[in-house]
Amino acid sequence: MSSTPFAARHSVEQVEEGTELAPRFDEHGLIPAVTTDFASGELLMVGYMNAEALRLTIETGQAHYFSRSRQALWRKGETSGLVQHVRELLIDDDQDCVWLRVEIDGGVSCHVGYRSCFYRRVPVGKAHAGGTPRLEFTLTDKAFEFEDMYPGQPNPTKL
Amino acid sequence: MSSTPFAARHSVEQVEEGTELAPRFDEHGLIPAVTTDFASGELLMVGYMNAEALRLTIETGQAHYFSRSRQALWRKGETSGLVQHVRELLIDDDQDCVWLRVEIDGGVSCHVGYRSCFYRRVPVGKAHAGGTPRLEFTLTDKAFEFEDMYPGQPNPTKL
Repeated sequence: MSSTPFAARHSVEQVEEGTELAPRFDEHGLIPAVTTDFASGELLMVGYMNAEALRLTIETGQAHYFSRSRQALWRKGETSGLVQHVRELLIDDDQDCVWLRVEIDGGVSCHVGYRSCFYRRVPVGKAHAGGTPRLEFTLTDKAFEFEDMYPGQPNPTKL
Repeated sequence: MSSTPFAARHSVEQVEEGTELAPRFDEHGLIPAVTTDFASGELLMVGYMNAEALRLTIETGQAHYFSRSRQALWRKGETSGLVQHVRELLIDDDQDCVWLRVEIDGGVSCHVGYRSCFYRRVPVGKAHAGGTPRLEFTLTDKAFEFEDMYPGQPNPTKL
Protein backbone atom coordinates (compact mmCIF):
# COMPACT_ATOMS: atom_id res chain seq x y z
CA MET A 1 0.00 0.00 0.00
CA SER A 2 2.79 2.37 0.97
CA SER A 3 5.38 3.34 -1.60
CA THR A 4 7.88 4.29 1.10
CA PRO A 5 8.20 1.27 3.36
CA PHE A 6 9.99 1.54 6.70
CA ALA A 7 12.41 -1.17 7.83
CA ALA A 8 11.55 -3.55 10.67
CA ARG A 9 13.55 -3.01 13.89
CA HIS A 10 15.69 -6.03 14.71
CA SER A 11 18.68 -4.85 16.75
CA VAL A 12 19.93 -1.89 18.77
CA GLU A 13 22.97 -1.64 16.50
CA GLN A 14 20.79 -1.47 13.37
CA VAL A 15 18.57 1.20 14.90
CA GLU A 16 21.35 3.35 16.38
CA GLU A 17 24.20 2.94 13.92
CA GLY A 18 22.59 1.66 10.75
CA THR A 19 21.39 3.38 7.61
CA GLU A 20 17.85 1.94 7.42
CA LEU A 21 14.94 4.15 8.35
CA ALA A 22 13.17 2.07 11.01
CA PRO A 23 11.05 4.49 13.02
CA ARG A 24 9.37 3.52 16.27
CA PHE A 25 5.83 4.79 16.64
CA ASP A 26 4.28 4.97 20.12
CA GLU A 27 1.17 3.16 21.37
CA HIS A 28 -0.97 5.71 19.51
CA GLY A 29 0.97 5.12 16.27
CA LEU A 30 2.71 8.50 16.54
CA ILE A 31 6.24 9.87 16.54
CA PRO A 32 7.06 13.38 17.82
CA ALA A 33 8.36 15.86 15.25
CA VAL A 34 10.46 18.85 16.26
CA THR A 35 10.36 21.67 13.73
CA THR A 36 12.95 24.44 13.59
CA ASP A 37 13.50 27.35 11.24
CA PHE A 38 16.16 26.40 8.70
CA ALA A 39 17.82 29.82 8.68
CA SER A 40 17.60 30.96 12.30
CA GLY A 41 17.48 27.60 14.12
CA GLU A 42 14.52 28.85 16.19
CA LEU A 43 12.24 26.13 17.52
CA LEU A 44 8.90 26.72 15.80
CA MET A 45 6.67 23.87 16.96
CA VAL A 46 6.52 20.29 18.17
CA GLY A 47 3.94 18.11 16.48
CA TYR A 48 3.25 14.45 15.91
CA MET A 49 3.30 12.26 12.81
CA ASN A 50 1.72 8.93 12.09
CA ALA A 51 3.33 6.65 9.51
CA GLU A 52 1.33 8.23 6.70
CA ALA A 53 2.36 11.76 7.67
CA LEU A 54 6.03 10.74 7.81
CA ARG A 55 5.73 9.00 4.45
CA LEU A 56 4.08 12.02 2.83
CA THR A 57 6.66 14.39 4.32
CA ILE A 58 9.47 12.30 2.85
CA GLU A 59 7.81 11.96 -0.54
CA THR A 60 6.61 15.54 -0.99
CA GLY A 61 9.18 17.54 1.00
CA GLN A 62 6.31 19.39 2.68
CA ALA A 63 5.65 18.87 6.38
CA HIS A 64 2.67 16.68 7.22
CA TYR A 65 1.56 15.98 10.77
CA PHE A 66 -1.18 14.08 12.55
CA SER A 67 -3.48 16.36 14.51
CA ARG A 68 -4.22 14.76 17.87
CA SER A 69 -7.04 17.20 18.58
CA ARG A 70 -8.71 16.53 15.22
CA GLN A 71 -7.45 12.92 14.89
CA ALA A 72 -6.67 13.59 11.25
CA LEU A 73 -3.78 13.80 8.83
CA TRP A 74 -2.76 17.42 8.48
CA ARG A 75 -0.68 19.08 5.78
CA LYS A 76 0.70 22.13 7.54
CA GLY A 77 -0.54 25.21 5.74
CA GLU A 78 -3.55 23.60 4.06
CA THR A 79 -5.83 26.21 5.67
CA SER A 80 -3.42 29.01 6.57
CA GLY A 81 -1.14 28.85 3.54
CA LEU A 82 1.82 28.71 5.95
CA VAL A 83 3.33 25.67 4.20
CA GLN A 84 6.54 24.23 5.66
CA HIS A 85 9.19 23.28 3.08
CA VAL A 86 11.50 20.66 4.60
CA ARG A 87 15.13 21.52 3.86
CA GLU A 88 16.50 18.77 6.10
CA LEU A 89 14.91 15.85 7.97
CA LEU A 90 16.86 14.04 10.67
CA ILE A 91 16.06 11.14 12.96
CA ASP A 92 17.41 10.47 16.43
CA ASP A 93 19.52 7.64 17.84
CA ASP A 94 16.68 5.25 18.73
CA GLN A 95 14.53 6.47 15.83
CA ASP A 96 11.53 7.54 17.90
CA CYS A 97 11.71 11.26 17.08
CA VAL A 98 12.30 13.34 13.94
CA TRP A 99 13.71 16.83 13.42
CA LEU A 100 12.43 18.98 10.56
CA ARG A 101 14.45 21.99 9.46
CA VAL A 102 11.99 24.06 7.42
CA GLU A 103 11.38 27.24 5.51
CA ILE A 104 7.85 28.58 5.98
CA ASP A 105 5.76 30.48 3.50
CA GLY A 106 4.81 33.63 5.42
CA GLY A 107 7.34 33.01 8.19
CA VAL A 108 4.74 32.23 10.88
CA SER A 109 4.15 28.84 12.46
CA CYS A 110 1.93 29.12 15.51
CA HIS A 111 -1.90 28.96 15.46
CA VAL A 112 -1.99 31.76 18.05
CA GLY A 113 -0.35 34.05 15.48
CA TYR A 114 3.21 34.24 16.77
CA ARG A 115 6.22 33.27 14.64
CA SER A 116 6.97 30.34 16.95
CA CYS A 117 4.79 28.39 19.40
CA PHE A 118 7.48 29.07 22.01
CA TYR A 119 6.93 32.72 22.87
CA ARG A 120 7.11 32.63 26.67
CA ARG A 121 10.09 32.12 28.96
CA VAL A 122 10.05 30.37 32.35
CA PRO A 123 12.59 31.91 34.76
CA VAL A 124 15.00 29.23 36.02
CA GLY A 125 17.74 28.88 38.61
CA LYS A 126 18.69 32.20 40.17
CA ALA A 127 16.00 33.96 38.13
CA HIS A 128 13.31 31.75 39.70
CA ALA A 129 11.57 33.78 42.39
CA GLY A 130 9.82 30.83 44.05
CA GLY A 131 6.10 30.07 43.96
CA THR A 132 4.25 29.61 40.68
CA PRO A 133 6.62 30.71 37.88
CA ARG A 134 5.56 33.84 36.06
CA LEU A 135 6.03 33.63 32.29
CA GLU A 136 7.80 36.35 30.34
CA PHE A 137 6.84 37.00 26.71
CA THR A 138 9.79 36.70 24.31
CA LEU A 139 7.69 37.37 21.20
CA THR A 140 5.00 40.01 21.11
CA ASP A 141 4.20 40.55 17.42
CA LYS A 142 1.17 38.58 16.27
CA ALA A 143 0.69 38.10 12.53
CA PHE A 144 -3.00 37.22 12.93
CA GLU A 145 -5.72 36.27 15.38
CA PHE A 146 -6.80 32.62 15.42
CA GLU A 147 -10.46 33.39 14.64
CA ASP A 148 -9.50 35.39 11.55
CA MET A 149 -7.10 32.79 10.17
CA TYR A 150 -9.22 29.74 10.97
CA PRO A 151 -12.85 30.95 10.92
CA GLY A 152 -15.26 28.49 12.48
CA GLN A 153 -12.56 26.06 13.56
CA PRO A 154 -12.33 24.96 17.20
CA ASN A 155 -9.17 26.06 18.99
CA PRO A 156 -6.77 23.09 19.15
CA THR A 157 -5.63 23.89 22.69
CA LYS A 158 -7.08 21.40 25.18
CA LEU A 159 -7.40 22.14 28.89
CA MET B 1 5.02 19.15 49.14
CA SER B 2 6.26 21.03 46.08
CA SER B 3 7.88 24.43 46.53
CA THR B 4 7.17 25.37 42.89
CA PRO B 5 3.46 24.89 42.33
CA PHE B 6 1.99 24.95 38.85
CA ALA B 7 -1.24 26.82 38.12
CA ALA B 8 -4.47 24.97 37.35
CA ARG B 9 -5.69 25.25 33.73
CA HIS B 10 -9.02 27.01 33.51
CA SER B 11 -9.25 28.67 30.10
CA VAL B 12 -7.68 28.65 26.65
CA GLU B 13 -6.89 32.36 26.98
CA GLN B 14 -5.08 31.82 30.29
CA VAL B 15 -3.06 28.93 28.87
CA GLU B 16 -2.17 30.58 25.55
CA GLU B 17 -1.86 34.25 26.40
CA GLY B 18 -1.40 34.33 30.16
CA THR B 19 1.66 34.55 32.37
CA GLU B 20 0.95 31.61 34.69
CA LEU B 21 2.92 28.41 34.23
CA ALA B 22 0.15 25.81 33.86
CA PRO B 23 1.74 22.82 32.12
CA ARG B 24 -0.31 19.95 30.75
CA PHE B 25 1.16 16.52 31.43
CA ASP B 26 0.03 13.57 29.32
CA GLU B 27 -1.70 10.39 30.49
CA HIS B 28 1.68 9.12 31.73
CA GLY B 29 2.28 12.34 33.68
CA LEU B 30 4.92 13.49 31.20
CA ILE B 31 5.66 16.53 29.04
CA PRO B 32 8.12 16.40 26.12
CA ALA B 33 11.26 18.51 26.46
CA VAL B 34 13.18 19.69 23.40
CA THR B 35 16.80 20.51 24.16
CA THR B 36 18.97 22.65 21.89
CA ASP B 37 22.51 23.96 22.20
CA PHE B 38 22.41 27.54 23.44
CA ALA B 39 25.22 28.77 21.21
CA SER B 40 24.69 26.84 17.97
CA GLY B 41 20.94 26.18 18.09
CA GLU B 42 21.55 22.53 17.19
CA LEU B 43 18.87 20.12 18.38
CA LEU B 44 20.60 17.88 20.91
CA MET B 45 17.87 15.60 22.25
CA VAL B 46 14.19 15.21 22.98
CA GLY B 47 13.33 13.84 26.39
CA TYR B 48 10.41 13.78 28.78
CA MET B 49 9.82 15.39 32.16
CA ASN B 50 7.39 14.57 34.91
CA ALA B 51 6.24 17.36 37.25
CA GLU B 52 9.16 16.70 39.61
CA ALA B 53 11.73 16.89 36.80
CA LEU B 54 10.27 20.19 35.58
CA ARG B 55 10.22 21.58 39.11
CA LEU B 56 13.84 20.59 39.74
CA THR B 57 14.93 22.02 36.38
CA ILE B 58 13.32 25.35 37.25
CA GLU B 59 14.72 25.44 40.76
CA THR B 60 18.29 24.28 40.03
CA GLY B 61 18.84 25.50 36.46
CA GLN B 62 20.16 22.03 35.56
CA ALA B 63 18.15 19.83 33.19
CA HIS B 64 16.27 16.98 34.83
CA TYR B 65 14.24 14.45 32.85
CA PHE B 66 12.16 11.37 33.51
CA SER B 67 13.67 8.27 31.94
CA ARG B 68 10.90 6.25 30.37
CA SER B 69 13.15 3.19 29.93
CA ARG B 70 14.25 3.26 33.59
CA GLN B 71 11.02 4.84 34.90
CA ALA B 72 13.07 7.11 37.10
CA LEU B 73 13.90 10.75 37.65
CA TRP B 74 17.13 11.52 35.86
CA ARG B 75 19.50 14.45 36.33
CA LYS B 76 21.25 14.65 32.98
CA GLY B 77 24.96 14.10 33.54
CA GLU B 78 24.68 12.32 36.88
CA THR B 79 26.60 9.34 35.44
CA SER B 80 28.36 10.86 32.43
CA GLY B 81 29.22 14.26 33.86
CA LEU B 82 27.63 15.81 30.77
CA VAL B 83 25.50 18.20 32.84
CA GLN B 84 23.12 20.52 30.98
CA HIS B 85 23.04 24.11 32.25
CA VAL B 86 19.74 25.71 31.24
CA ARG B 87 20.30 29.20 29.87
CA GLU B 88 16.69 29.63 28.76
CA LEU B 89 13.51 27.61 29.29
CA LEU B 90 10.44 28.29 27.15
CA ILE B 91 6.98 26.78 27.02
CA ASP B 92 4.70 26.47 24.02
CA ASP B 93 1.29 27.93 23.26
CA ASP B 94 -0.85 25.21 24.87
CA GLN B 95 1.80 24.50 27.53
CA ASP B 96 2.27 20.82 26.73
CA CYS B 97 5.91 21.04 25.62
CA VAL B 98 9.03 22.81 26.89
CA TRP B 99 12.16 24.02 25.12
CA LEU B 100 15.49 23.99 26.94
CA ARG B 101 18.39 26.04 25.58
CA VAL B 102 21.44 24.60 27.31
CA GLU B 103 25.21 24.65 27.63
CA ILE B 104 26.68 21.20 28.21
CA ASP B 105 29.76 20.29 30.18
CA GLY B 106 31.83 18.31 27.67
CA GLY B 107 29.73 19.40 24.69
CA VAL B 108 28.23 15.94 24.08
CA SER B 109 24.59 14.98 24.62
CA CYS B 110 23.84 11.59 23.07
CA HIS B 111 24.24 8.25 24.85
CA VAL B 112 25.62 6.77 21.61
CA GLY B 113 28.57 9.18 21.88
CA TYR B 114 27.68 11.77 19.25
CA ARG B 115 27.32 15.48 20.03
CA SER B 116 23.60 15.34 19.22
CA CYS B 117 21.11 12.47 19.12
CA PHE B 118 20.21 13.67 15.61
CA TYR B 119 23.17 12.48 13.55
CA ARG B 120 21.39 10.95 10.54
CA ARG B 121 19.54 12.61 7.69
CA VAL B 122 16.52 11.19 5.85
CA PRO B 123 16.50 12.24 2.17
CA VAL B 124 13.23 14.04 1.35
CA GLY B 125 11.41 15.32 -1.70
CA LYS B 126 13.55 15.22 -4.82
CA ALA B 127 16.39 13.59 -2.85
CA HIS B 128 14.10 10.67 -1.92
CA ALA B 129 14.97 7.75 -4.19
CA GLY B 130 11.88 5.67 -3.40
CA GLY B 131 11.77 2.48 -1.37
CA THR B 132 13.03 2.35 2.21
CA PRO B 133 14.89 5.60 2.86
CA ARG B 134 18.63 5.23 3.35
CA LEU B 135 20.00 7.37 6.18
CA GLU B 136 23.03 9.62 5.70
CA PHE B 137 25.30 10.34 8.66
CA THR B 138 25.68 14.07 9.40
CA LEU B 139 27.92 13.54 12.44
CA THR B 140 30.68 10.94 12.50
CA ASP B 141 32.86 11.84 15.47
CA LYS B 142 32.04 9.82 18.58
CA ALA B 143 33.30 11.12 21.91
CA PHE B 144 32.87 7.73 23.60
CA GLU B 145 31.32 4.28 23.29
CA PHE B 146 28.21 3.58 25.38
CA GLU B 147 29.74 0.62 27.21
CA ASP B 148 32.74 2.70 28.30
CA MET B 149 30.69 5.66 29.50
CA TYR B 150 27.93 3.66 31.17
CA PRO B 151 29.53 0.36 32.25
CA GLY B 152 27.01 -2.30 33.21
CA GLN B 153 23.97 -0.16 32.26
CA PRO B 154 21.40 -1.52 29.81
CA ASN B 155 21.17 0.41 26.56
CA PRO B 156 18.12 2.72 26.74
CA THR B 157 17.13 2.09 23.11
CA LYS B 158 14.03 -0.12 22.90
CA LEU B 159 13.13 -2.13 19.81
